[in-house]
Amino acid sequence: MDPDSLRVVLVSPRNPLNIGAAARAMSNFGFLRLRVVNAYHVAYNEAKSAVNASAVLRSSEQFDSVAAAIADCALVVGTVSLGHRELQHSFRRLEFGAREIAASSGPVALLFGSEKFGLSNEDMSHCHWLMHIPTRQAHESMNLGQAVAVCLYELARDNAAANVVPVKPGGAGAADLQRISELLIEAATLSGYTPPHTEESSHNKIRRMIRRLSLQERDVPMWLGMLRQLIWKLQLK
Amino acid sequence: MDPDSLRVVLVSPRNPLNIGAAARAMSNFGFLRLRVVNAYHVAYNEAKSAVNASAVLRSSEQFDSVAAAIADCALVVGTVSLGHRELQHSFRRLEFGAREIAASSGPVALLFGSEKFGLSNEDMSHCHWLMHIPTRQAHESMNLGQAVAVCLYELARDNAAANVVPVKPGGAGAADLQRISELLIEAATLSGYTPPHTEESSHNKIRRMIRRLSLQERDVPMWLGMLRQLIWKLQLK
Repeated sequence: MDPDSLRVVLVSPRNPLNIGAAARAMSNFGFLRLRVVNAYHVAYNEAKSAVNASAVLRSSEQFDSVAAAIADCALVVGTVSLGHRELQHSFRRLEFGAREIAASSGPVALLFGSEKFGLSNEDMSHCHWLMHIPTRQAHESMNLGQAVAVCLYELARDNAAANVVPVKPGGAGAADLQRISELLIEAATLSGYTPPHTEESSHNKIRRMIRRLSLQERDVPMWLGMLRQLIWKLQLK
Repeated sequence: MDPDSLRVVLVSPRNPLNIGAAARAMSNFGFLRLRVVNAYHVAYNEAKSAVNASAVLRSSEQFDSVAAAIADCALVVGTVSLGHRELQHSFRRLEFGAREIAASSGPVALLFGSEKFGLSNEDMSHCHWLMHIPTRQAHESMNLGQAVAVCLYELARDNAAANVVPVKPGGAGAADLQRISELLIEAATLSGYTPPHTEESSHNKIRRMIRRLSLQERDVPMWLGMLRQLIWKLQLK
Protein backbone atom coordinates (compact mmCIF):
# COMPACT_ATOMS: atom_id res chain seq x y z
CA MET A 1 0.00 0.00 0.00
CA ASP A 2 0.98 3.64 -0.36
CA PRO A 3 2.27 4.53 3.14
CA ASP A 4 1.00 8.04 2.63
CA SER A 5 -2.63 6.87 2.61
CA LEU A 6 -2.45 5.53 6.17
CA ARG A 7 -3.22 7.65 9.22
CA VAL A 8 -2.15 6.15 12.52
CA VAL A 9 -4.57 7.47 15.13
CA LEU A 10 -3.66 7.24 18.83
CA VAL A 11 -6.77 7.70 20.95
CA SER A 12 -6.24 9.04 24.49
CA PRO A 13 -2.60 7.97 24.90
CA ARG A 14 -1.27 8.62 28.42
CA ASN A 15 2.44 7.80 28.37
CA PRO A 16 4.98 10.00 26.56
CA LEU A 17 7.33 7.03 26.09
CA ASN A 18 4.58 5.13 24.27
CA ILE A 19 3.71 8.09 22.08
CA GLY A 20 7.39 8.43 21.22
CA ALA A 21 7.72 4.69 20.57
CA ALA A 22 4.69 4.68 18.26
CA ALA A 23 6.14 7.60 16.29
CA ARG A 24 9.51 5.85 16.06
CA ALA A 25 7.97 2.66 14.67
CA MET A 26 6.04 4.76 12.13
CA SER A 27 9.25 6.38 11.01
CA ASN A 28 11.01 2.98 10.82
CA PHE A 29 8.38 1.60 8.46
CA GLY A 30 7.73 4.80 6.50
CA PHE A 31 4.20 5.61 7.68
CA LEU A 32 4.56 9.27 8.55
CA ARG A 33 1.07 10.58 9.31
CA LEU A 34 0.30 10.52 13.00
CA ARG A 35 -2.94 11.80 14.50
CA VAL A 36 -3.55 12.08 18.20
CA VAL A 37 -7.03 12.31 19.76
CA ASN A 38 -7.59 13.57 23.30
CA ALA A 39 -3.99 13.04 24.29
CA TYR A 40 -3.12 13.65 27.90
CA HIS A 41 -1.53 17.05 27.20
CA VAL A 42 1.44 16.74 29.53
CA ALA A 43 2.38 13.41 27.94
CA TYR A 44 1.94 14.65 24.39
CA ASN A 45 3.97 17.77 24.98
CA GLU A 46 6.69 15.85 26.77
CA ALA A 47 6.93 13.35 23.90
CA LYS A 48 6.91 16.12 21.31
CA SER A 49 9.63 18.14 23.00
CA ALA A 50 11.95 15.21 23.71
CA VAL A 51 15.44 15.75 22.26
CA ASN A 52 15.10 12.68 20.07
CA ALA A 53 11.49 13.38 19.01
CA SER A 54 11.02 12.17 15.44
CA ALA A 55 9.79 14.27 12.53
CA VAL A 56 6.65 12.09 12.65
CA LEU A 57 5.86 13.33 16.14
CA ARG A 58 6.70 16.93 15.35
CA SER A 59 4.35 16.94 12.36
CA SER A 60 1.57 15.04 14.15
CA GLU A 61 -1.95 16.51 14.23
CA GLN A 62 -4.19 16.87 17.26
CA PHE A 63 -7.94 16.27 17.30
CA ASP A 64 -10.68 16.56 19.90
CA SER A 65 -12.73 13.61 18.70
CA VAL A 66 -12.36 10.37 16.80
CA ALA A 67 -14.99 11.59 14.33
CA ALA A 68 -12.84 14.60 13.42
CA ALA A 69 -9.63 12.55 13.21
CA ILE A 70 -11.08 10.07 10.72
CA ALA A 71 -13.32 12.40 8.70
CA ASP A 72 -11.24 12.13 5.52
CA CYS A 73 -10.82 8.34 5.67
CA ALA A 74 -12.59 5.78 3.46
CA LEU A 75 -11.81 2.91 5.81
CA VAL A 76 -11.54 3.01 9.60
CA VAL A 77 -10.01 0.04 11.42
CA GLY A 78 -9.71 -0.31 15.18
CA THR A 79 -7.07 -2.45 16.89
CA VAL A 80 -8.18 -4.30 20.03
CA SER A 81 -7.23 -7.42 21.92
CA LEU A 82 -9.45 -10.46 21.50
CA GLY A 83 -10.90 -10.25 24.99
CA HIS A 84 -11.64 -6.58 24.61
CA ARG A 85 -13.58 -6.59 21.35
CA GLU A 86 -17.11 -5.41 20.87
CA LEU A 87 -18.95 -8.53 19.84
CA GLN A 88 -21.20 -6.63 17.47
CA HIS A 89 -18.26 -5.72 15.28
CA SER A 90 -16.68 -7.85 12.64
CA PHE A 91 -13.21 -8.92 13.51
CA ARG A 92 -10.05 -9.94 11.62
CA ARG A 93 -6.65 -11.30 12.58
CA LEU A 94 -3.89 -8.83 11.65
CA GLU A 95 -2.46 -10.98 8.82
CA PHE A 96 -5.85 -11.05 7.09
CA GLY A 97 -7.00 -7.54 7.97
CA ALA A 98 -3.77 -6.12 6.56
CA ARG A 99 -4.56 -7.64 3.15
CA GLU A 100 -7.85 -5.76 3.13
CA ILE A 101 -6.24 -2.52 4.22
CA ALA A 102 -3.62 -2.87 1.49
CA ALA A 103 -6.32 -3.52 -1.13
CA SER A 104 -8.52 -0.59 -0.13
CA SER A 105 -8.45 2.62 -2.10
CA GLY A 106 -8.50 5.97 -0.39
CA PRO A 107 -7.18 6.99 3.02
CA VAL A 108 -7.28 4.46 5.86
CA ALA A 109 -7.33 5.25 9.57
CA LEU A 110 -5.78 2.72 11.95
CA LEU A 111 -6.91 3.37 15.53
CA PHE A 112 -5.04 2.43 18.72
CA GLY A 113 -6.70 2.94 22.10
CA SER A 114 -5.20 4.10 25.38
CA GLU A 115 -2.61 1.95 27.15
CA LYS A 116 -4.93 1.08 30.00
CA PHE A 117 -8.38 0.79 28.49
CA GLY A 118 -7.91 0.32 24.76
CA LEU A 119 -10.61 1.71 22.48
CA SER A 120 -13.95 2.61 24.05
CA ASN A 121 -17.27 1.39 22.68
CA GLU A 122 -17.82 4.84 21.27
CA ASP A 123 -14.41 4.81 19.56
CA MET A 124 -15.18 1.39 18.08
CA SER A 125 -18.54 2.55 16.77
CA HIS A 126 -16.62 4.67 14.25
CA CYS A 127 -14.81 1.62 12.88
CA HIS A 128 -15.76 -0.45 9.85
CA TRP A 129 -14.17 -3.46 11.48
CA LEU A 130 -11.72 -4.41 14.21
CA MET A 131 -8.38 -6.13 14.03
CA HIS A 132 -6.32 -8.04 16.58
CA ILE A 133 -2.69 -9.07 16.79
CA PRO A 134 -2.47 -12.86 17.24
CA THR A 135 -1.12 -12.89 20.79
CA ARG A 136 -1.67 -15.85 23.10
CA GLN A 137 -4.70 -15.95 25.32
CA ALA A 138 -2.70 -16.09 28.54
CA HIS A 139 -1.08 -12.73 27.74
CA GLU A 140 -3.07 -10.80 25.17
CA SER A 141 -2.41 -7.21 25.94
CA MET A 142 0.51 -5.67 24.07
CA ASN A 143 2.50 -2.58 24.84
CA LEU A 144 1.21 0.31 22.67
CA GLY A 145 4.52 1.05 20.93
CA GLN A 146 5.06 -2.63 20.18
CA ALA A 147 1.51 -3.06 18.87
CA VAL A 148 2.00 -0.13 16.48
CA ALA A 149 5.34 -1.60 15.34
CA VAL A 150 3.84 -5.03 14.65
CA CYS A 151 0.83 -3.66 12.72
CA LEU A 152 2.97 -1.39 10.56
CA TYR A 153 5.49 -4.17 9.92
CA GLU A 154 2.64 -6.37 8.68
CA LEU A 155 1.49 -3.59 6.34
CA ALA A 156 5.04 -3.05 5.05
CA ARG A 157 6.15 -6.65 4.74
CA ASP A 158 6.77 -8.48 1.48
CA ASN A 159 4.07 -11.08 0.90
CA ALA A 160 6.18 -12.83 -1.68
CA ALA A 161 7.93 -14.47 1.28
CA ALA A 162 5.10 -16.98 1.66
CA ASN A 163 5.91 -18.56 -1.68
CA VAL A 164 9.62 -18.82 -1.14
CA VAL A 165 11.06 -22.25 -0.54
CA PRO A 166 14.15 -21.77 1.59
CA VAL A 167 17.28 -22.82 -0.28
CA LYS A 168 20.84 -22.88 0.90
CA PRO A 169 22.35 -20.11 -1.20
CA GLY A 170 25.85 -19.86 -2.48
CA GLY A 171 26.77 -23.45 -1.82
CA ALA A 172 30.12 -24.70 -3.05
CA GLY A 173 30.00 -26.73 -6.27
CA ALA A 174 30.63 -30.45 -6.50
CA ALA A 175 34.07 -29.95 -8.06
CA ASP A 176 35.20 -27.81 -5.15
CA LEU A 177 33.82 -30.29 -2.65
CA GLN A 178 35.72 -33.02 -4.44
CA ARG A 179 38.95 -31.02 -4.40
CA ILE A 180 38.60 -30.29 -0.70
CA SER A 181 37.78 -33.95 0.01
CA GLU A 182 40.85 -35.13 -1.85
CA LEU A 183 43.12 -32.75 0.03
CA LEU A 184 41.61 -33.72 3.37
CA ILE A 185 42.09 -37.38 2.50
CA GLU A 186 45.70 -36.68 1.57
CA ALA A 187 46.27 -34.83 4.81
CA ALA A 188 44.63 -37.62 6.80
CA THR A 189 46.81 -40.19 5.08
CA LEU A 190 50.02 -38.23 5.58
CA SER A 191 49.24 -37.68 9.24
CA GLY A 192 48.59 -41.41 9.75
CA TYR A 193 44.94 -40.86 10.68
CA THR A 194 43.66 -43.21 7.98
CA PRO A 195 44.73 -46.82 8.62
CA PRO A 196 45.76 -48.50 5.32
CA HIS A 197 43.34 -51.45 5.51
CA THR A 198 40.22 -49.30 5.88
CA GLU A 199 41.35 -46.90 3.19
CA GLU A 200 38.35 -46.95 0.92
CA SER A 201 35.68 -46.75 3.59
CA SER A 202 37.63 -43.99 5.31
CA HIS A 203 37.78 -42.01 2.11
CA ASN A 204 34.05 -42.36 1.58
CA LYS A 205 33.39 -41.30 5.13
CA ILE A 206 35.49 -38.17 4.65
CA ARG A 207 33.75 -37.32 1.39
CA ARG A 208 30.30 -37.68 2.94
CA MET A 209 31.34 -35.64 5.94
CA ILE A 210 32.53 -32.81 3.69
CA ARG A 211 29.21 -32.81 1.84
CA ARG A 212 27.25 -32.48 5.03
CA LEU A 213 29.00 -29.20 5.84
CA SER A 214 26.93 -26.72 3.74
CA LEU A 215 30.24 -25.31 2.59
CA GLN A 216 29.86 -21.88 1.03
CA GLU A 217 31.43 -21.11 -2.32
CA ARG A 218 33.33 -18.10 -1.03
CA ASP A 219 34.95 -20.21 1.70
CA VAL A 220 36.46 -22.65 -0.79
CA PRO A 221 39.77 -20.80 -1.36
CA MET A 222 40.45 -20.59 2.36
CA TRP A 223 39.79 -24.31 2.90
CA LEU A 224 41.98 -25.22 -0.06
CA GLY A 225 44.73 -22.91 1.17
CA MET A 226 44.70 -24.28 4.70
CA LEU A 227 44.72 -27.89 3.54
CA ARG A 228 47.54 -27.32 1.04
CA GLN A 229 49.63 -25.68 3.72
CA LEU A 230 48.97 -28.59 6.09
CA ILE A 231 49.97 -31.09 3.41
CA TRP A 232 53.14 -29.16 2.53
CA LYS A 233 54.15 -29.12 6.22
CA LEU A 234 53.34 -32.83 6.64
CA GLN A 235 55.46 -33.69 3.60
CA LEU A 236 58.47 -31.89 5.06
CA LYS A 237 58.55 -34.26 8.04
CA MET B 1 7.49 -23.64 14.60
CA ASP B 2 7.49 -24.99 18.14
CA PRO B 3 7.88 -21.85 20.29
CA ASP B 4 9.76 -23.91 22.82
CA SER B 5 12.64 -24.48 20.42
CA LEU B 6 13.48 -20.77 20.16
CA ARG B 7 15.88 -19.00 22.53
CA VAL B 8 15.76 -15.22 22.40
CA VAL B 9 19.25 -14.00 23.31
CA LEU B 10 19.76 -10.37 24.35
CA VAL B 11 23.44 -9.48 24.10
CA SER B 12 24.65 -6.64 26.37
CA PRO B 13 21.30 -4.90 26.87
CA ARG B 14 21.62 -1.64 28.81
CA ASN B 15 18.09 -0.39 29.50
CA PRO B 16 15.75 -2.11 31.98
CA LEU B 17 12.68 -0.85 30.09
CA ASN B 18 13.92 -2.52 26.91
CA ILE B 19 14.68 -5.79 28.69
CA GLY B 20 11.17 -5.70 30.17
CA ALA B 21 9.63 -4.84 26.79
CA ALA B 22 11.45 -7.71 25.07
CA ALA B 23 10.22 -10.13 27.75
CA ARG B 24 6.67 -8.81 27.40
CA ALA B 25 6.65 -9.32 23.63
CA MET B 26 7.98 -12.86 24.14
CA SER B 27 5.14 -13.58 26.54
CA ASN B 28 2.60 -12.06 24.10
CA PHE B 29 3.67 -14.37 21.30
CA GLY B 30 4.37 -17.45 23.43
CA PHE B 31 8.16 -17.63 23.10
CA LEU B 32 9.15 -18.08 26.72
CA ARG B 33 12.89 -18.81 26.77
CA LEU B 34 14.95 -15.70 27.34
CA ARG B 35 18.73 -15.68 27.64
CA VAL B 36 20.74 -12.63 28.57
CA VAL B 37 24.46 -12.25 27.84
CA ASN B 38 26.63 -9.68 29.62
CA ALA B 39 23.68 -7.63 30.74
CA TYR B 40 24.39 -4.39 32.48
CA HIS B 41 23.67 -5.79 35.95
CA VAL B 42 21.83 -2.81 37.37
CA ALA B 43 19.48 -2.79 34.37
CA TYR B 44 18.90 -6.53 34.44
CA ASN B 45 18.16 -6.58 38.15
CA GLU B 46 15.89 -3.56 37.88
CA ALA B 47 13.91 -5.17 35.04
CA LYS B 48 13.72 -8.48 36.88
CA SER B 49 12.47 -6.94 40.10
CA ALA B 50 9.86 -4.64 38.53
CA VAL B 51 6.37 -5.22 39.95
CA ASN B 52 5.04 -6.17 36.55
CA ALA B 53 8.03 -8.35 35.56
CA SER B 54 6.79 -11.22 33.45
CA ALA B 55 7.36 -14.89 34.16
CA VAL B 56 9.60 -14.85 31.06
CA LEU B 57 11.93 -12.39 32.72
CA ARG B 58 11.89 -14.14 36.07
CA SER B 59 12.85 -17.46 34.46
CA SER B 60 15.46 -15.93 32.15
CA GLU B 61 19.01 -17.32 32.17
CA GLN B 62 22.25 -15.34 32.39
CA PHE B 63 25.43 -16.09 30.46
CA ASP B 64 28.90 -14.61 30.33
CA SER B 65 29.47 -15.16 26.63
CA VAL B 66 27.56 -15.61 23.39
CA ALA B 67 29.32 -18.96 22.90
CA ALA B 68 27.90 -20.27 26.18
CA ALA B 69 24.41 -18.89 25.49
CA ILE B 70 24.11 -20.63 22.12
CA ALA B 71 26.01 -23.84 22.90
CA ASP B 72 22.89 -26.05 22.65
CA CYS B 73 21.51 -24.46 19.45
CA ALA B 74 21.54 -26.01 15.98
CA LEU B 75 20.95 -22.68 14.24
CA VAL B 76 22.15 -19.24 15.35
CA VAL B 77 20.66 -16.14 13.70
CA GLY B 78 21.72 -12.57 14.44
CA THR B 79 19.44 -9.56 13.94
CA VAL B 80 21.10 -6.40 12.64
CA SER B 81 20.13 -3.32 10.67
CA LEU B 82 21.12 -3.19 7.01
CA GLY B 83 23.76 -0.54 7.54
CA HIS B 84 25.28 -2.43 10.43
CA ARG B 85 25.71 -5.83 8.87
CA GLU B 86 28.96 -7.71 8.49
CA LEU B 87 29.38 -7.96 4.75
CA GLN B 88 31.01 -11.38 4.95
CA HIS B 89 27.82 -12.84 6.39
CA SER B 90 24.85 -13.99 4.40
CA PHE B 91 21.82 -11.88 5.01
CA ARG B 92 18.04 -12.34 4.84
CA ARG B 93 15.03 -10.07 5.15
CA LEU B 94 12.92 -11.06 8.17
CA GLU B 95 10.02 -12.42 6.09
CA PHE B 96 12.34 -14.82 4.29
CA GLY B 97 14.64 -15.64 7.21
CA ALA B 98 11.62 -16.57 9.34
CA ARG B 99 10.65 -19.27 6.80
CA GLU B 100 14.07 -20.84 7.22
CA ILE B 101 13.93 -20.64 11.00
CA ALA B 102 10.51 -22.27 10.97
CA ALA B 103 11.78 -25.03 8.67
CA SER B 104 14.84 -25.81 10.78
CA SER B 105 14.92 -28.68 13.21
CA GLY B 106 16.50 -28.38 16.62
CA PRO B 107 16.90 -25.38 18.91
CA VAL B 108 17.36 -21.95 17.32
CA ALA B 109 19.00 -18.93 18.93
CA LEU B 110 17.85 -15.48 17.82
CA LEU B 111 20.36 -12.80 18.86
CA PHE B 112 19.66 -9.11 19.49
CA GLY B 113 22.53 -6.72 20.17
CA SER B 114 22.75 -3.81 22.57
CA GLU B 115 20.53 -0.75 22.04
CA LYS B 116 23.42 1.48 21.09
CA PHE B 117 25.83 -0.71 19.16
CA GLY B 118 23.90 -3.75 18.01
CA LEU B 119 25.80 -7.02 17.67
CA SER B 120 29.59 -6.83 17.57
CA ASN B 121 31.66 -8.51 14.86
CA GLU B 122 32.59 -11.17 17.39
CA ASP B 123 28.91 -11.76 18.27
CA MET B 124 28.11 -12.09 14.56
CA SER B 125 30.90 -14.62 14.02
CA HIS B 126 28.80 -17.09 16.06
CA CYS B 127 25.86 -16.72 13.66
CA HIS B 128 25.03 -18.95 10.71
CA TRP B 129 23.42 -15.97 9.03
CA LEU B 130 22.03 -12.51 9.76
CA MET B 131 18.54 -11.14 9.45
CA HIS B 132 17.15 -7.61 9.16
CA ILE B 133 13.75 -6.07 9.68
CA PRO B 134 12.70 -4.23 6.48
CA THR B 135 12.83 -0.69 7.85
CA ARG B 136 13.39 2.29 5.58
CA GLN B 137 16.88 3.51 4.90
CA ALA B 138 16.27 6.97 6.32
CA HIS B 139 15.44 5.48 9.74
CA GLU B 140 16.76 1.96 10.05
CA SER B 141 17.43 1.52 13.70
CA MET B 142 14.55 0.08 15.71
CA ASN B 143 13.91 0.18 19.42
CA LEU B 144 15.02 -3.14 20.97
CA GLY B 145 11.64 -4.09 22.44
CA GLN B 146 9.88 -3.27 19.18
CA ALA B 147 12.41 -5.24 17.13
CA VAL B 148 11.87 -8.30 19.34
CA ALA B 149 8.08 -7.90 19.01
CA VAL B 150 8.22 -7.67 15.21
CA CYS B 151 10.54 -10.70 14.82
CA LEU B 152 8.44 -12.89 17.12
CA TYR B 153 5.22 -11.78 15.42
CA GLU B 154 6.69 -12.86 12.08
CA LEU B 155 7.59 -16.27 13.53
CA ALA B 156 4.09 -16.66 15.02
CA ARG B 157 2.01 -15.33 12.13
CA ASP B 158 -0.26 -17.37 9.90
CA ASN B 159 1.22 -17.67 6.42
CA ALA B 160 -2.12 -18.70 4.96
CA ALA B 161 -2.97 -14.98 4.89
CA ALA B 162 -0.88 -14.49 1.75
CA ASN B 163 -3.36 -16.49 -0.30
CA VAL B 164 -6.44 -14.58 0.76
CA VAL B 165 -7.77 -12.24 -1.90
CA PRO B 166 -9.69 -9.39 -0.32
CA VAL B 167 -12.69 -7.88 -2.08
CA LYS B 168 -12.44 -4.30 -3.27
CA PRO B 169 -15.25 -2.18 -1.93
CA GLY B 170 -16.08 1.20 -3.48
CA GLY B 171 -17.04 2.26 0.00
CA ALA B 172 -18.43 5.52 1.24
CA GLY B 173 -15.99 7.74 3.18
CA ALA B 174 -16.00 8.15 6.94
CA ALA B 175 -17.34 11.71 6.73
CA ASP B 176 -20.37 10.50 4.73
CA LEU B 177 -20.97 7.61 7.13
CA GLN B 178 -20.76 10.04 10.00
CA ARG B 179 -23.23 12.42 8.31
CA ILE B 180 -25.68 9.58 7.64
CA SER B 181 -25.31 8.31 11.22
CA GLU B 182 -26.02 11.75 12.64
CA LEU B 183 -29.12 12.17 10.49
CA LEU B 184 -30.40 8.70 11.38
CA ILE B 185 -29.81 9.42 15.07
CA GLU B 186 -31.69 12.71 14.68
CA ALA B 187 -34.57 10.96 12.93
CA ALA B 188 -34.66 8.23 15.56
CA THR B 189 -34.74 10.81 18.32
CA LEU B 190 -37.46 12.91 16.65
CA SER B 191 -39.57 9.82 16.05
CA GLY B 192 -39.27 8.75 19.67
CA TYR B 193 -37.46 5.53 18.72
CA THR B 194 -34.50 6.33 20.98
CA PRO B 195 -35.49 6.38 24.64
CA PRO B 196 -33.76 9.28 26.39
CA HIS B 197 -32.04 7.18 29.09
CA THR B 198 -30.32 4.85 26.62
CA GLU B 199 -29.21 7.68 24.40
CA GLU B 200 -25.47 7.06 24.25
CA SER B 201 -25.59 3.30 23.76
CA SER B 202 -28.31 3.75 21.12
CA HIS B 203 -26.17 6.22 19.25
CA ASN B 204 -23.21 3.85 19.32
CA LYS B 205 -25.45 1.04 18.10
CA ILE B 206 -26.68 3.15 15.20
CA ARG B 207 -23.15 4.18 14.23
CA ARG B 208 -21.99 0.56 14.23
CA MET B 209 -25.02 -0.55 12.26
CA ILE B 210 -24.34 2.06 9.58
CA ARG B 211 -20.72 0.95 9.32
CA ARG B 212 -21.71 -2.67 8.83
CA LEU B 213 -23.74 -1.77 5.74
CA SER B 214 -20.92 -1.66 3.15
CA LEU B 215 -22.55 1.53 1.96
CA GLN B 216 -21.46 2.42 -1.54
CA GLU B 217 -20.26 5.90 -2.32
CA ARG B 218 -22.85 6.42 -5.08
CA ASP B 219 -25.68 5.65 -2.64
CA VAL B 220 -24.71 8.39 -0.23
CA PRO B 221 -26.76 11.23 -1.80
CA MET B 222 -29.92 9.13 -1.75
CA TRP B 223 -29.50 8.15 1.89
CA LEU B 224 -28.83 11.75 2.87
CA GLY B 225 -31.82 12.95 0.85
CA MET B 226 -34.22 10.42 2.33
CA LEU B 227 -33.10 11.09 5.88
CA ARG B 228 -33.28 14.88 5.48
CA GLN B 229 -36.79 14.57 4.11
CA LEU B 230 -37.81 12.34 7.02
CA ILE B 231 -36.37 14.77 9.55
CA TRP B 232 -38.09 17.72 7.87
CA LYS B 233 -41.42 15.90 8.02
CA LEU B 234 -40.90 14.84 11.64
CA GLN B 235 -40.12 18.42 12.64
CA LEU B 236 -43.43 19.60 11.14
CA LYS B 237 -45.42 17.46 13.55
